[in-house]
Amino acid sequence: MKHLLDIKDLSKTDLKQLFERADKLKALTSTERIQRLTGRQVVCLFYENSTRTLLSFQLAADALGASVFNLPLQHSSAQKGESFTDTIQTIAAMAPDALVMRHPKDHVHRDIVDLLPENVHLINAGDGQNQHPTQALLDLYTIGQHKSRFEGLKVVIIGDIKHSRVAKSLIDGLTTLGTSNIHVYGPDHLIPEPYTPLKAPDMRAALDQTDVVVMLRIQKERFEQHESLHIDRWFAQYGLDQEKLSLAQKDAIVMHPGPLNRGIEISSAVADGPQSVILQQVRNGVLMRQAVLDCLLS
Amino acid sequence: MKHLLDIKDLSKTDLKQLFERADKLKALTSTERIQRLTGRQVVCLFYENSTRTLLSFQLAADALGASVFNLPLQHSSAQKGESFTDTIQTIAAMAPDALVMRHPKDHVHRDIVDLLPENVHLINAGDGQNQHPTQALLDLYTIGQHKSRFEGLKVVIIGDIKHSRVAKSLIDGLTTLGTSNIHVYGPDHLIPEPYTPLKAPDMRAALDQTDVVVMLRIQKERFEQHESLHIDRWFAQYGLDQEKLSLAQKDAIVMHPGPLNRGIEISSAVADGPQSVILQQVRNGVLMRQAVLDCLLS
Amino acid sequence: MKHLLDIKDLSKTDLKQLFERADKLKALTSTERIQRLTGRQVVCLFYENSTRTLLSFQLAADALGASVFNLPLQHSSAQKGESFTDTIQTIAAMAPDALVMRHPKDHVHRDIVDLLPENVHLINAGDGQNQHPTQALLDLYTIGQHKSRFEGLKVVIIGDIKHSRVAKSLIDGLTTLGTSNIHVYGPDHLIPEPYTPLKAPDMRAALDQTDVVVMLRIQKERFEQHESLHIDRWFAQYGLDQEKLSLAQKDAIVMHPGPLNRGIEISSAVADGPQSVILQQVRNGVLMRQAVLDCLLS
Repeated sequence: MKHLLDIKDLSKTDLKQLFERADKLKALTSTERIQRLTGRQVVCLFYENSTRTLLSFQLAADALGASVFNLPLQHSSAQKGESFTDTIQTIAAMAPDALVMRHPKDHVHRDIVDLLPENVHLINAGDGQNQHPTQALLDLYTIGQHKSRFEGLKVVIIGDIKHSRVAKSLIDGLTTLGTSNIHVYGPDHLIPEPYTPLKAPDMRAALDQTDVVVMLRIQKERFEQHESLHIDRWFAQYGLDQEKLSLAQKDAIVMHPGPLNRGIEISSAVADGPQSVILQQVRNGVLMRQAVLDCLLS
Repeated sequence: MKHLLDIKDLSKTDLKQLFERADKLKALTSTERIQRLTGRQVVCLFYENSTRTLLSFQLAADALGASVFNLPLQHSSAQKGESFTDTIQTIAAMAPDALVMRHPKDHVHRDIVDLLPENVHLINAGDGQNQHPTQALLDLYTIGQHKSRFEGLKVVIIGDIKHSRVAKSLIDGLTTLGTSNIHVYGPDHLIPEPYTPLKAPDMRAALDQTDVVVMLRIQKERFEQHESLHIDRWFAQYGLDQEKLSLAQKDAIVMHPGPLNRGIEISSAVADGPQSVILQQVRNGVLMRQAVLDCLLS
Repeated sequence: MKHLLDIKDLSKTDLKQLFERADKLKALTSTERIQRLTGRQVVCLFYENSTRTLLSFQLAADALGASVFNLPLQHSSAQKGESFTDTIQTIAAMAPDALVMRHPKDHVHRDIVDLLPENVHLINAGDGQNQHPTQALLDLYTIGQHKSRFEGLKVVIIGDIKHSRVAKSLIDGLTTLGTSNIHVYGPDHLIPEPYTPLKAPDMRAALDQTDVVVMLRIQKERFEQHESLHIDRWFAQYGLDQEKLSLAQKDAIVMHPGPLNRGIEISSAVADGPQSVILQQVRNGVLMRQAVLDCLLS
């Protein structure tokens, strides 16, 4: 594995090896961990705002002993008329070991990966509405901590599928791992073409007997003008509360990629309740990003 | 000591031990110092602008070998509708060893401290108009370098007491260390209720026989509309120049938390003069923050 | 060498020693390199936007094991009324080992260098339209990798000389190294007084038999209102394409400090062509900044 651009590039074996690597890294002492990537340099290039993903990558790289730099893109040479590919080639010429890039444009990592020198590894931290592979990894790893196997699981993803790279990456990763019983639920106009066959007829059917419930954030900032969003009715129709959750398996887990809109897509009782694994996802995010960096750079 | 939220939480013994720890850290070689907190991670969360305090914490953590991350809050998930406590819990779930937080709201650290996992230490880098405990520590340590004991000292704090967490923290710390002869001076409307008994009748009385003169910055940004501030007359009435300073003890020291408004609260001759310990305060700031981090994390 | 403020402060011997130091650092293993400046602290103070120079200094310092901090000047105390020299003195009082400063005002580093404590080294990362000494160093080092000697070389610098600290620093450095055959070319109003004797009569004469062609970026942001800039005609008159480049020596190299305005000052065919050393300049930038930091701090 040289780059991580798309969760679909990883086989079932690749995924399992990454999870094992995460387990091994977790078992190390802090002193052992910090020697894994000492002297390596990671540059974060976030063309979209981020708190959690950026900090998660920073803490992950640092825990392995790598140095990490966050490029202040508001100061970017783009303001001086430089093209995007020139910016990337310039940074890559400085020979960091890895570039971690988030960008609003779908598939943009594919456009630049061939421009990079031999020893620069590219990690996709989210591209437009397409992929967010490290989020999928942490979601899959979290599911694996709670469920004994991926085959036969029922997973439902609820909310705005259309704008969600989280949903798409997760569906791809689950499919690789053998989960076939995947459903989505949300307003028709937020479930795009390839996912309509997965659509549950109603919230009850979506949740019934479900092992894993993934609630998505309403990404208001990605909605275009003409897409109507009746946010006041959203919770009643698509939000998760305790009553609806009781339709799922007793040991169902509730996931959310964050940040949460409490009372819109999820009630506080559920978000903070015993079935919620939301903060565990955050913890696992740092760990899985360690596993990815360790796999690519060591 | 697990967290540092308020200087009042520290006993006289706690304070003296922190000063001794600072002395010991200063005596270490750079190579010894850097091993104190190797592998530890500190996250700075500044919800208010800061140059000196933020950099001071960063240099302090780094000198002890810890890694330090500054969260770009302009990129914050708060923009995506996330609640403040969810942001804190998310960051804390990533398991940094310490959170250093500055926030415009009084007492906000108390609201979140119980939400933190066991191993995350919280340090208050300033909350609203309430507390700035590491500033008090560096001020007290600086006084201790010049004066043989705290009992019997006359200390006067001049300027805008009302908006000053620096003044409040310092008065609390001095009181703990046994200084009872504390005075404040400034316009009546900038000296709030609990401090009115400390008010000197005039600038002459304030400065007379004083051992320590603490000048405060006029915090124009904290004034509300209806609070009149006659800045052109401020220096004449409340500013410190050489002539006024001559009323104090010959070996009086002059302190200021910075940044300075030269010619408004202090003349350049005094700020740069032999009695000024302003840059020494800055130097001691890095040292005392080392002592705090070392005490909490090692 | 204590500070690096101006390329003219370096003798021919100083320059050669810096190039040799760069060669030696390049030959080290990453593990050896990282021990050069372990425990040292570098603070970057950029009062002008920068991507490449800032990141280059950060990666250089880090590769030698130093810690590097980038001060967010949008959060600066300047907003609280602090003077520029007070900001510098405050930061210097925190005792970093080096300050790397970029500033829009010419000669500003000279104004502050005497205010610094004994052990704080100042590096000029660009001052107004005056100097950019580390850029000159990387340019000279790159030329030295391609040409056997500096004496007898023909070097031409094309474009906006007036606003270019890159051009001025490079001319100074070349002169020190013995290159006397230096020419400039561009619109008359962009070639200021001291450089008019170097002006080539036309583009053909400028490029004829040239060993080194340095194209400059049009710095639109530095133009004042009354300076007319006919950007649409610029490429025809002053831009470099393959046909014009064929007038130069067959083994001529093409340099550009970046960021590029493709199609304005340089064609893509030339920028990406076999004679271009533009990305090599970027790579050498990290290396020469390592050499400077190593020279000043070790």
